[in-house]
Amino acid sequence: MSVGLSVKRVDAFEKVTGRARYTDDYHLDHALVAKIMHSTIANGLVKQIDISEASKLPGVVKIVTCFDVPDITYPTAGHPWSVDPDHQDVADRKLLNTRVRYYGDDIAAVIAKDEVTASRALKLIKVEYEEYEPMVAIDASLKDGAQALHEAYPDNILNHTHYEKGNYEEAIKEEGLIRFEGEYKTPMVKHCHIETPISYAYGEAGRMVVVSSTQIPHIVRRIVGQALGLGWGKVRIIKPYIGGGFGNKQDALYEPLNAYLSQVIGGRCVKLELTREETFVNTRVRNAMRIKLISYIRPNGRLVARKAELFANKGAYASHGHSVVSKAGHAVKQIYHDEKATMGDMYSVFTNMPVSGAMRAYGIPQITFALEAQMDEMAEKLKIDPIAIRKMNMMQEGFVDNQIKCNSYGLEACIDKGKETIDWDNKRKAYANQTGPVRRGVGMAIFSYATGVYPIALETASCRIVLNQDGTIQVQMGATEIGQGADTVFSQMAAEILDIPMSHVHIISTQDTDVTPYDSGAYASRQSYVSGMAVKKAAIELRDKILEHAEFMLKLPVGNLDLAHCHVVNKQTGDVLASLEEVATHAVYNMEKSVHITADVTNHCKSNTFSFGACFVDIEVDVPIGKIKVNKVINVHDCGKLLNPQLAAAQVHGGMSMSLGFGLSEQMLFHEKTGKPLNNNLLDYKLPTILDTPKLETDFVETYDVSGPFGNKALGEPPAIPVAPAIRNALFHATGVSFHEAPLTPQRLVEKFKSLNMI
Amino acid sequence: MSVGLSVKRVDAFEKVTGRARYTDDYHLDHALVAKIMHSTIANGLVKQIDISEASKLPGVVKIVTCFDVPDITYPTAGHPWSVDPDHQDVADRKLLNTRVRYYGDDIAAVIAKDEVTASRALKLIKVEYEEYEPMVAIDASLKDGAQALHEAYPDNILNHTHYEKGNYEEAIKEEGLIRFEGEYKTPMVKHCHIETPISYAYGEAGRMVVVSSTQIPHIVRRIVGQALGLGWGKVRIIKPYIGGGFGNKQDALYEPLNAYLSQVIGGRCVKLELTREETFVNTRVRNAMRIKLISYIRPNGRLVARKAELFANKGAYASHGHSVVSKAGHAVKQIYHDEKATMGDMYSVFTNMPVSGAMRAYGIPQITFALEAQMDEMAEKLKIDPIAIRKMNMMQEGFVDNQIKCNSYGLEACIDKGKETIDWDNKRKAYANQTGPVRRGVGMAIFSYATGVYPIALETASCRIVLNQDGTIQVQMGATEIGQGADTVFSQMAAEILDIPMSHVHIISTQDTDVTPYDSGAYASRQSYVSGMAVKKAAIELRDKILEHAEFMLKLPVGNLDLAHCHVVNKQTGDVLASLEEVATHAVYNMEKSVHITADVTNHCKSNTFSFGACFVDIEVDVPIGKIKVNKVINVHDCGKLLNPQLAAAQVHGGMSMSLGFGLSEQMLFHEKTGKPLNNNLLDYKLPTILDTPKLETDFVETYDVSGPFGNKALGEPPAIPVAPAIRNALFHATGVSFHEAPLTPQRLVEKFKSLNMI
Repeated sequence: MSVGLSVKRVDAFEKVTGRARYTDDYHLDHALVAKIMHSTIANGLVKQIDISEASKLPGVVKIVTCFDVPDITYPTAGHPWSVDPDHQDVADRKLLNTRVRYYGDDIAAVIAKDEVTASRALKLIKVEYEEYEPMVAIDASLKDGAQALHEAYPDNILNHTHYEKGNYEEAIKEEGLIRFEGEYKTPMVKHCHIETPISYAYGEAGRMVVVSSTQIPHIVRRIVGQALGLGWGKVRIIKPYIGGGFGNKQDALYEPLNAYLSQVIGGRCVKLELTREETFVNTRVRNAMRIKLISYIRPNGRLVARKAELFANKGAYASHGHSVVSKAGHAVKQIYHDEKATMGDMYSVFTNMPVSGAMRAYGIPQITFALEAQMDEMAEKLKIDPIAIRKMNMMQEGFVDNQIKCNSYGLEACIDKGKETIDWDNKRKAYANQTGPVRRGVGMAIFSYATGVYPIALETASCRIVLNQDGTIQVQMGATEIGQGADTVFSQMAAEILDIPMSHVHIISTQDTDVTPYDSGAYASRQSYVSGMAVKKAAIELRDKILEHAEFMLKLPVGNLDLAHCHVVNKQTGDVLASLEEVATHAVYNMEKSVHITADVTNHCKSNTFSFGACFVDIEVDVPIGKIKVNKVINVHDCGKLLNPQLAAAQVHGGMSMSLGFGLSEQMLFHEKTGKPLNNNLLDYKLPTILDTPKLETDFVETYDVSGPFGNKALGEPPAIPVAPAIRNALFHATGVSFHEAPLTPQRLVEKFKSLNMI
Repeated sequence: MSVGLSVKRVDAFEKVTGRARYTDDYHLDHALVAKIMHSTIANGLVKQIDISEASKLPGVVKIVTCFDVPDITYPTAGHPWSVDPDHQDVADRKLLNTRVRYYGDDIAAVIAKDEVTASRALKLIKVEYEEYEPMVAIDASLKDGAQALHEAYPDNILNHTHYEKGNYEEAIKEEGLIRFEGEYKTPMVKHCHIETPISYAYGEAGRMVVVSSTQIPHIVRRIVGQALGLGWGKVRIIKPYIGGGFGNKQDALYEPLNAYLSQVIGGRCVKLELTREETFVNTRVRNAMRIKLISYIRPNGRLVARKAELFANKGAYASHGHSVVSKAGHAVKQIYHDEKATMGDMYSVFTNMPVSGAMRAYGIPQITFALEAQMDEMAEKLKIDPIAIRKMNMMQEGFVDNQIKCNSYGLEACIDKGKETIDWDNKRKAYANQTGPVRRGVGMAIFSYATGVYPIALETASCRIVLNQDGTIQVQMGATEIGQGADTVFSQMAAEILDIPMSHVHIISTQDTDVTPYDSGAYASRQSYVSGMAVKKAAIELRDKILEHAEFMLKLPVGNLDLAHCHVVNKQTGDVLASLEEVATHAVYNMEKSVHITADVTNHCKSNTFSFGACFVDIEVDVPIGKIKVNKVINVHDCGKLLNPQLAAAQVHGGMSMSLGFGLSEQMLFHEKTGKPLNNNLLDYKLPTILDTPKLETDFVETYDVSGPFGNKALGEPPAIPVAPAIRNALFHATGVSFHEAPLTPQRLVEKFKSLNMI
């Protein structure tokens, strides 16, 4: 048995000893270095670029500008391709852009013999712009007569979708309903993975190879092909170990540009590594949202109808398009069930800001902040315990929305566990009616989260397993290890099915699109569920092939054979008939029927299921200085069967840390007129350090989800959802002040407290 | 159509531009460097090794000696493993040896920070030996009371095998037979591939990885496992492009030692590269042979019975064991057919010499030299034209020996073509009875050669093909490109079956035993035949899967569909139904049934067939100085269907060059008492340079062999067989002097001519 045990990470030794090879460790020979020229205006047009001085600098190999690149627009989103043009991602950017849409847009690139030379060359390039008024907020873009950032979207709205479940207008006519309305705002934040985007690109036998730190090698392959106008098979992507991604590397970031740069110099190897400052502005950010929620509720706390209006700040380009805010909007009707009607309107709005894309939990941290805030406001108003009001309205087992089904249901148990751990009832009472400068509060938040992207998009994953002559195996996955432990749980799954020890499973961590089976990659908390099922199916197929050969070798009917503890055994008696090693060796080397046993299986996943969780916090707030201290915080998750409890806990720790920053300190700041970034570095951007981080407690409610390969469902992203709203609610409990905007920085608190004459 | 065309090599651009990565180009980070300490005696025992001074040298990381290594003996031959212990290779050496068996045996190794330090350390190591009398010739080893080099072989004979076809003693009683007897000798020669053996070894996640220049990655994996006592799956071999092998790299040379060296220092990366001098002595050499042939022939030229006795000088260790001389001995009854009986006795004898192993054509150049020499002696004596006497006795279509069948037969046509090209009849007459100092002669030689090793050993090969979304493919082979063009013809085969252009086939040239399908590797002229059939089968399976998906996509019965010119077409009408790209894209991305189309197929080959060829030369010999000049030389081959005429011709050129050196100048020389090598470098070892090489002409007789995947059969090794004997026979024609030993150096000629009073 391997699944369910806290086995050691398969990459632990390599990573701890520094042997694991990341992209930068590839050290490809004679690599030239590329640096990108970014615009110093947020909105405008490049009139001309003078590279004459820069070109003369010794060591400069080539300079390309936005006037040189192919006239091809391409999408960057890490979504699987769709054969339906209506479902394809928005192709709205070129490799370098003449039309500048944010402060830092890519307008030229230098290839030089080294980084110093490339950087010096950048300074010698002269750019002449035609400058337009920057639109750094949604309101500016939506203003009547605002300039269109993209021709195809004259009103700067990339997309607006609407849904109505039940009849909203009819529903709100019910007598005696209490109406709540609130507008909530979440900030633009950054993933802050350790490893900044980096790639090597080079030509090889008439094709382009890109070694890159990406979550989605097979998708990047396709996008590089699109951007360069190459057949997708003419592109090869290699993904080594990566130092985090959190959704930022679920976009094709600079792989297409780097491939192009190598291409224009005949396939010589080019290295392109972003600085931390570039990573902040020139890669993706979390969609900042403004969310208006209107709820109609009976005095007893039962929700009757709600209406949500969400505006996402897309920034300059579509990237993941409308899907983030769409997912957020649809979640309104999932975690809570209105008795009569729910309505949603979701807008994606272009602005002259960095591009928002995917970030861990994909819209759900934003909507959950709003939903959970309003839920506590209603509870307070109706004098109902926040837990009681949630239990009255929340999703129940068997619920189905858009083919996503609640197959397994641990939400209520999660709440009960957290409630007990935080000592909810006592503390809710004890912390009531405080008046001193330092006040305490407890708060909580819940959420639901889907597992993968079915049925919105394709869920396909493949796994290949190779049997060695000693009965050990290699596992090849298109799915990617991005630090989350995917390789370890995939190995556990294969070991489980074949009944061999973990040491007999060798997983190939590096993806190489030339030989690695197809998989969309690491996102949407899909891999242990979708790709895990591919492992299960491939392992079963391998087992069947092994037993089929054992039938031939042992001259015994395959129906009577099974694998157990590295042996072929009698299925009925368990008697050992041959070692797996003997059968494996015989398979290759026997002179009658030699066969190289492998299995290569695609899992097309057509199911989806909800994961759940709850966060409980105990905080104290120092009112005069607006400083929140988290005394205790616990996330309790229902992710189905736990594949590896220790890795699961580690996954939750990381997510909680992100949600803590989202709730308390993180936000990207820009000059309100020029759109120039103000804190695009790790000194000024307040990512929580270890000193800012309380002890992160985790607990689980194990359920068994019949749709998952081993009863498991989503856990990758969910931990990043509930801490921020739970803290907000605890602050509400501590002070009676209901904040509508994250993060809850001292500045924001102090201003608010002042306005309320509390200080 | 791709097969049969002279398409450009798929690796041409990479190799010409220097981009193709060979082992040394891997430049693995922080690699330490190992150097080997070789014995300075040829026969004896290491009493003790003092490493105290060497260990103190700054930069020395570790020194291991023959007293440290595991007590495991292992085989080195590049043969597939056999599940029958009687057919396994001889395990007769350790990683480092206390019992020293040739001058240069491996007794210790230094790992240091760089090569200079390692070399300096070697000089500081002090060794004390117990020295025995070296046995540098077969006669010494076979002498009564000779010391046994290996305990298991008290008479120094590794193996003696015997066969008799018909009744020899009865056959020779026929009246009127003429008896011929001759003893022929061929030298110990060296492969002289450009790239000397080199490897990097390092630990990875509890396993050992070796990047190595080898012909046989999967076999080396097994041998490293055996030598280190590791499960074979705990070893990973990566084979980049290699700079030639010619059989020398069909042995596990220093991969096991290098893996061990890395292992003893915790898996740090170690580079081990042999010098040219080491390559001469410490890797393999061609089996030097002494061959006694007795023939009984009728006056009309018909062979009645023959007896062959072959002694191979194995050197110090078994390596490929008895198989080289065995193959040579069995060839006697193949190329020529005795009407009544053929008898063979083959001996493999240990001596205190470098180890003989595989070299291009595996015993056949040696036996062909003897057979073809005696054939001309008989022709001369019986006054029959050499061609006529051969035609009277040579193999005919349908011949079978040990399950090797003559399925296709171009031998006679090869002779006729060569005969015409060289203007045989006129020149045989014109060059008769010359007397001057410079005399001309024409000579010829023929041969047959099996294709692969069936039924002696296992013939198994696998191929995996991956379909890309644009309808292009990757081909993964366990079979290895070693410079011969294998990757190109495999690509042609896949293109042919799938009816796509060569540019749509991407072959993975680097083998990585973790993911590369199993194949024994490059030897025995097997790959285009055995592995080529794996390509064919995999391509057919891929085609079937593509059409199966097209059936689903197009809702048309698969039986009516076919692939043509990158499209799915109506099988009957040829009408285009969809592009291959559309079907391939749909396969992955459709929402109903997503499938990642691949094929992974094993070909267990159970057939073998004979290739043929003839060489014709026109030479002149300067009798007083013993110098032979080749005026014209042509090889005419029957290798079945030509897969790529240009590559085939290149293959023949290379083989002819080797046979030229074998016939004229190459031989490894040793001090007759100490066994110390005398010419282990490319200055003193007379490899023909371009100035020594005449224009090499090639021609082919195309046949179609039904057992080959595309009508093809062996061509890799055969070209290296016939030039040497043809030159010998031309010299016989020119001078009337019948030489029995190669190479035909000026020294040997002058001595002989002097003894005959010709000068």
